[in-house]
Amino acid sequence: MSVKSLTLAELASALNADWQGEGAYAVHSAASLAHGQAGQIGFYADKKLKPQLSTTQLGVLILKPADEALFTGNKLLHPQPQQAFAHALALLYPTHLPAIGIHPTALVDPTATVHATARIGAYVCIGANSVVGADCVLHPRVTIYHGVKLAERVQIHSGAVLGADGFGYAPVQGQWIKVPQVGGVRIGADVEIGANTTIDRGALDDTVLGQGVKLDNQIQIGHNCVIGEHTAIAGCVGIAGSTQIGAHCMIGGAAMIAGHLRICDQVIISGGTLVASHITEPGQYTGVFPTLPHRAWAKLAGQLRHQIKS
Amino acid sequence: MSVKSLTLAELASALNADWQGEGAYAVHSAASLAHGQAGQIGFYADKKLKPQLSTTQLGVLILKPADEALFTGNKLLHPQPQQAFAHALALLYPTHLPAIGIHPTALVDPTATVHATARIGAYVCIGANSVVGADCVLHPRVTIYHGVKLAERVQIHSGAVLGADGFGYAPVQGQWIKVPQVGGVRIGADVEIGANTTIDRGALDDTVLGQGVKLDNQIQIGHNCVIGEHTAIAGCVGIAGSTQIGAHCMIGGAAMIAGHLRICDQVIISGGTLVASHITEPGQYTGVFPTLPHRAWAKLAGQLRHQIKS
Amino acid sequence: MSVKSLTLAELASALNADWQGEGAYAVHSAASLAHGQAGQIGFYADKKLKPQLSTTQLGVLILKPADEALFTGNKLLHPQPQQAFAHALALLYPTHLPAIGIHPTALVDPTATVHATARIGAYVCIGANSVVGADCVLHPRVTIYHGVKLAERVQIHSGAVLGADGFGYAPVQGQWIKVPQVGGVRIGADVEIGANTTIDRGALDDTVLGQGVKLDNQIQIGHNCVIGEHTAIAGCVGIAGSTQIGAHCMIGGAAMIAGHLRICDQVIISGGTLVASHITEPGQYTGVFPTLPHRAWAKLAGQLRHQIKS
Repeated sequence: MSVKSLTLAELASALNADWQGEGAYAVHSAASLAHGQAGQIGFYADKKLKPQLSTTQLGVLILKPADEALFTGNKLLHPQPQQAFAHALALLYPTHLPAIGIHPTALVDPTATVHATARIGAYVCIGANSVVGADCVLHPRVTIYHGVKLAERVQIHSGAVLGADGFGYAPVQGQWIKVPQVGGVRIGADVEIGANTTIDRGALDDTVLGQGVKLDNQIQIGHNCVIGEHTAIAGCVGIAGSTQIGAHCMIGGAAMIAGHLRICDQVIISGGTLVASHITEPGQYTGVFPTLPHRAWAKLAGQLRHQIKS
Repeated sequence: MSVKSLTLAELASALNADWQGEGAYAVHSAASLAHGQAGQIGFYADKKLKPQLSTTQLGVLILKPADEALFTGNKLLHPQPQQAFAHALALLYPTHLPAIGIHPTALVDPTATVHATARIGAYVCIGANSVVGADCVLHPRVTIYHGVKLAERVQIHSGAVLGADGFGYAPVQGQWIKVPQVGGVRIGADVEIGANTTIDRGALDDTVLGQGVKLDNQIQIGHNCVIGEHTAIAGCVGIAGSTQIGAHCMIGGAAMIAGHLRICDQVIISGGTLVASHITEPGQYTGVFPTLPHRAWAKLAGQLRHQIKS
Repeated sequence: MSVKSLTLAELASALNADWQGEGAYAVHSAASLAHGQAGQIGFYADKKLKPQLSTTQLGVLILKPADEALFTGNKLLHPQPQQAFAHALALLYPTHLPAIGIHPTALVDPTATVHATARIGAYVCIGANSVVGADCVLHPRVTIYHGVKLAERVQIHSGAVLGADGFGYAPVQGQWIKVPQVGGVRIGADVEIGANTTIDRGALDDTVLGQGVKLDNQIQIGHNCVIGEHTAIAGCVGIAGSTQIGAHCMIGGAAMIAGHLRICDQVIISGGTLVASHITEPGQYTGVFPTLPHRAWAKLAGQLRHQIKS
């Protein structure tokens, strides 16, 4: 789907990288070390892929200056090869974002504020008193309820819902009485939110995502959660209400974090782990049953059940 | 976002509560014990928060008559403080629901029936022969397939899908032949359904949610499930086909319940628990691996794997 | 909701089955062995239900020729009773699919290609350079980003999103730099995709679902996954990026599969299992903590924590 072609020298200039090889060499697209061909650019940063350096057919490789000697073909030298590669992709490939402005089918409440540089896709709904900042991108079919504030450069993928009511009920005589959810949602700059992810509005205070937070698809963020800056959360994660996650954390896919917890900065939660207690020390935390051939699992499960009784 | 202001005496009258303090004291919004300020109302019911009673800056507190002596400021006495607080929120804060009637962009099949008091939001789709009862609220971008019946006061949040086909296939020579899903969905009165939750139509009989059931976001209810009255289910839960859940159950976030099971009334399933057998006794059930620092977890997992072999 | 009525002899002819009993017997709808009444058709294939054969009130039963003697009423003999039953359902019940063609509210990019026989529902969005093959069915509110190719007879349920950006970022000085996702999505013939399921576009290469794959609701497929032919995946499953699943696999509900793994053909993953390693042998794999009454679980969890220290 690439439509542009750039020379090695042009790429070096745009990426602020040194280059070696044939400056007029034309690059039209990008590929991995394993699948790359002539005319394609790739990058090397992960030592596990070192053996592929001798066999790759890539036309141009981006690698660290310290790794210069590992590759003999056309190359770009950059201290952050993956960052430079991301930049090259942005140069070579067209973007497919909604157009700047509000799509004719998008419904924006008269009391909402949408920055003139924002891109609001088809069938997006934006409720009362909500704010969409500069250079935000809302893909088709995003719902923003009332009282949701997006800072600059927030990108939200299709089907995401921000500001639906939190799950708040008072138990009264065996029934559940709804507690009106009157808080809002505040999303920091440079946040990206994946497809069909849901972020509930606060009960009284706001639900808050800090600057640079990245959420994958199908994540559920409960009311009054606070997610620290630059924390990345993989798909299918659920975070129950009023939990505070620190900055620079990484939460693996399908992890679940119970409500009213505090997770400190720099915590890594492994995929599939259920967190039910505060975490006060940085580091990686895991809690998944080992996966085994079914018969071995059944034996182990039986032993564990027996162990309780003894 | 509060726009109204009520005096202590007015609130007491509306909430049918006794009051003590300055009857003309003006309340304009609500807050928690921890964050409350003058002019704000909060409630006290959880004994764990008792220490906050001496430091809270709340202008008005709702508490039980028996707890009257614990707080010296303006107060409302009510046997169900959280219920009274929910009522106060409804009085103080504006609601932001779709308008009564059918939004011009909503598509309602000519054979569907929508009660005149229902609120049908933008871009909602309602299929053939479906019924939406009195005072229902369908937020923007809800899909109701054909043959789905909603009783009164059902509230459905954005992105939810009711009545998509259940996951039914006949295995024939290594391929999957689709089994037409010809049942419907029946939703009882006062049910609330969260954003992006999905409830499949029945294979032959209907999928049924009893009166007062509360579903959080991103829940998946398989075909022919029956959920008993006043059961509350937290986010990211999945319930596989043909399972029957009793009344007054509470299912924690990300719990998964296998198909064709019966769970009796008054069962609590802890978050993240996988239920693979019938449950015939009320009580709480749990099945999650303890979460540990990754190195400790790896050691434990290794010990368990070793244990099978011995 | 049945609107047609067929005789036993007519059904036998349409299903290419032998019949015994009253050829003019009228069938108007379908039901299970347990709930069936006169005028209804059902099937028998699961030996566990054998006791129901003597009590069922079904008007017509489909069963295998070898089981002929087990039932004395009107019957259809077919080697694949469930397949024949699926066929009977399709004959007796009306379908409720979007009409052939593109719904007036659907937005199709001028560079996209939609086959004339496809059914594109209301509020569907289809991006640039995407292709929708013959006889595809896109229910209301499906989003197809740019560069997504659907082969023939693909059915996609409401709220599903195909081709949103994969979760790809380069870590640079504590922040996340977005890596443009320039691959596409390719979906094979006869694939069905459930409500609110999300399938990310590839980072460089495509994300690929093989022919006959069946995905239930709320599944997340990461960028560059490859799912083999006729693999069936139940609801709430997440598959992280670049994982390859073989053909004819069955993945149980809420299972999570980590990234960059290879799962061979004919693998069964139990519901709720987290797969973190390659699987190279066919068979069933399980990894879930036994679910117990909460107090027993707490005791066992404590024992396990103690076990690490010793």
